Amino acid sequence: MSVRPLLAHGRLAGLDEIATIGVDATRGGYSRHVWTPAEFELREWFVARATGLGLDVETDRNGNLWAWWGAPGQDAVVTGSHLDSVPGGGAYDGPLGVVSALDAVARLQTTGFRPSRPVAVVVFAEEEGSRFGVACLGSRLLSGAIDADSARALTDVDGVSFADAAASAGLDPAHLGRDDDMLARIGLFIELHVEQGRGLIDLDAPVAVASSILAHGRWRLRVTGQGNHAGATGMRERRDPVVAAARAVLAVEEAALSTDDARATVGRLRIVPGGTNVIASAVDAWIDARAATDEATRALVADIETRAQRAVAGSGCSVDLIEESWSGVVRFDRDLAARLSGTLGDVPLLATGAGHDAGVLSGSVPTAMVFVRNPTGVSHSPEEFAEAADCVAGVTALEALLRSVL
Amino acid sequence: MSVRPLLAHGRLAGLDEIATIGVDATRGGYSRHVWTPAEFELREWFVARATGLGLDVETDRNGNLWAWWGAPGQDAVVTGSHLDSVPGGGAYDGPLGVVSALDAVARLQTTGFRPSRPVAVVVFAEEEGSRFGVACLGSRLLSGAIDADSARALTDVDGVSFADAAASAGLDPAHLGRDDDMLARIGLFIELHVEQGRGLIDLDAPVAVASSILAHGRWRLRVTGQGNHAGATGMRERRDPVVAAARAVLAVEEAALSTDDARATVGRLRIVPGGTNVIASAVDAWIDARAATDEATRALVADIETRAQRAVAGSGCSVDLIEESWSGVVRFDRDLAARLSGTLGDVPLLATGAGHDAGVLSGSVPTAMVFVRNPTGVSHSPEEFAEAADCVAGVTALEALLRSVL
Repeated sequence: MSVRPLLAHGRLAGLDEIATIGVDATRGGYSRHVWTPAEFELREWFVARATGLGLDVETDRNGNLWAWWGAPGQDAVVTGSHLDSVPGGGAYDGPLGVVSALDAVARLQTTGFRPSRPVAVVVFAEEEGSRFGVACLGSRLLSGAIDADSARALTDVDGVSFADAAASAGLDPAHLGRDDDMLARIGLFIELHVEQGRGLIDLDAPVAVASSILAHGRWRLRVTGQGNHAGATGMRERRDPVVAAARAVLAVEEAALSTDDARATVGRLRIVPGGTNVIASAVDAWIDARAATDEATRALVADIETRAQRAVAGSGCSVDLIEESWSGVVRFDRDLAARLSGTLGDVPLLATGAGHDAGVLSGSVPTAMVFVRNPTGVSHSPEEFAEAADCVAGVTALEALLRSVL
Repeated sequence: MSVRPLLAHGRLAGLDEIATIGVDATRGGYSRHVWTPAEFELREWFVARATGLGLDVETDRNGNLWAWWGAPGQDAVVTGSHLDSVPGGGAYDGPLGVVSALDAVARLQTTGFRPSRPVAVVVFAEEEGSRFGVACLGSRLLSGAIDADSARALTDVDGVSFADAAASAGLDPAHLGRDDDMLARIGLFIELHVEQGRGLIDLDAPVAVASSILAHGRWRLRVTGQGNHAGATGMRERRDPVVAAARAVLAVEEAALSTDDARATVGRLRIVPGGTNVIASAVDAWIDARAATDEATRALVADIETRAQRAVAGSGCSVDLIEESWSGVVRFDRDLAARLSGTLGDVPLLATGAGHDAGVLSGSVPTAMVFVRNPTGVSHSPEEFAEAADCVAGVTALEALLRSVL
């Protein structure tokens, strides 16, 4: 069997193959949301690539793809990541882990390696939560971290429910939810991912093994005021929820700045009705909040709510905070992380503020993560990047890790 | 000829006929944007109703509808308004003037009245600017208040140009622009409109004649920062344009509160890319600003820019202010307004902060406006309202005015 070169046009060949799929001409970067035409195209690409390696691909009850090397079975070593993106996201967040997994398997195959356990390359669905609002939805459903009824009721911006979207994608919405058979097969999950911060820049290293993930979640702050005409309504007659939401956004920042190692972000707003010459009637501001421990994150969100209520007092607007998702702090298995780090020649251990499917699965199965350096330090943006040499170092590391556990 | 009753189900029969067209289930109220299916349906309704009164309907080069009573000709008395809405708007803003105009013509016809001059009922296109961003676009094009090239290049939220949308609606984009033949026909324009403030509540009167319209315009404040990952980027490493835009929104309010009789509103924001777990790269905030004179409005906008620049200083974000539309203060013809007020038994004269096609046309032809009381004082919202008795008073007033000038 011959294996094709890892690199094409200065990046991993797999990334090059999908470089034109889901390009977002308006925002820049990629918009590849679950079960949209771009994401279906990525799934087709994955099936073709995996099949080309002799893997058997199945879609599980929750829309995740599994490409099996050998017969599916217990105690499998699973590696992979996701292919969906945030709106206007980068080329590496997700696809780097999938492409590296396929490349690592191909390299093992080329050397005639025979795995002692089943191996699967996985693609998790809706990792970013960009369409239905809950991140890591595929792995949450698989592991039961979200109940099926809650997931089925989620809706996208057009009002399409997750249940209907799943049905359109060929799934049976009645069969969504915790999948004990599939979970029982996973002996170990290793996710390779581009780093989303500056840790490896500071460490001057191409790869690291993950130590922990900050606790994080999403909350929706609903600010309700009084819709009215922008020209005919005097400034002191208003109950303008956009002004109140602006004060709340500043309260979010203040709360995060007041908490050690915390991050809180408003990256998405919905103004109702959203006309230029209209005083809005309501604003939804989505808050992404993260801190070092579960308790610190809960305290941060409570502080945000207190500050937001105080900030809008007297505006005639009201504020409600609704939790949309929650992920407790993840501490990856220390022994496993130490063993993997040793296998790779004592590469550094690194904490991250970004959530991952590996974090969700860590509650159910042993998981580990490998990070690849991002020289811009920027992620969820077209500027996200990884040097070709670092990507190759990532594939090499993943291949070594697979050898060590197979 | 028999005339049907003015009222049905407690409102003007014409409003009742269109009550189900363009209902916005998400925002509440109506979303009836130019050349969308709902707005096409409203045009068909208008053609059917006008044709039923024996009027001949034509669409002008800019997409405005004209229903002629008798042969089109010079020195015509024109009355009407618009049928499009803001997103999630009320039932009265625009349609009340069109329905009242048709009803007034019907009542004149029933009494055997023979006009001494041509009469037309007009429906202006894109009065709200909800699709292409420039209010009163149909009357601006007709009167040359916007040049055709600028209009053709406007785009909607899906990137469709005004030129392409006009072509899809059956217009020749090359023929958009100032229409001297049509302008030359207008001897006088009277627009009836629901009031968008509390003036008539305070005056305890059902109708008023307009004295003036505040100067107003729209500006786009672009805040540029650095897109990044919401979890992996520390609070002090950020250049978050949502936080900067929040400060700018507060600066807009402060500037308006510091200027007598001024109004400034942010009712629409666009966040790029707009993901919950993404620090945005840019924010567009649209500002609607109005004041009593042209100079005061210019000074208000300059003050907004100064305060916004100061508010974002040190955030690492930059701010640019782009003018999107401008309408100088309108003082309706005093003699005409006084004469109309007298005809109606000395009804009050009332200034307004809301822009209208009548304001745009006042630079080209004699214009006047009649306001009908809005007991909620709320407009551009589903709560906008007019009592049936006040609507009838409006039709009665419009009929009397038409008699006095025909």
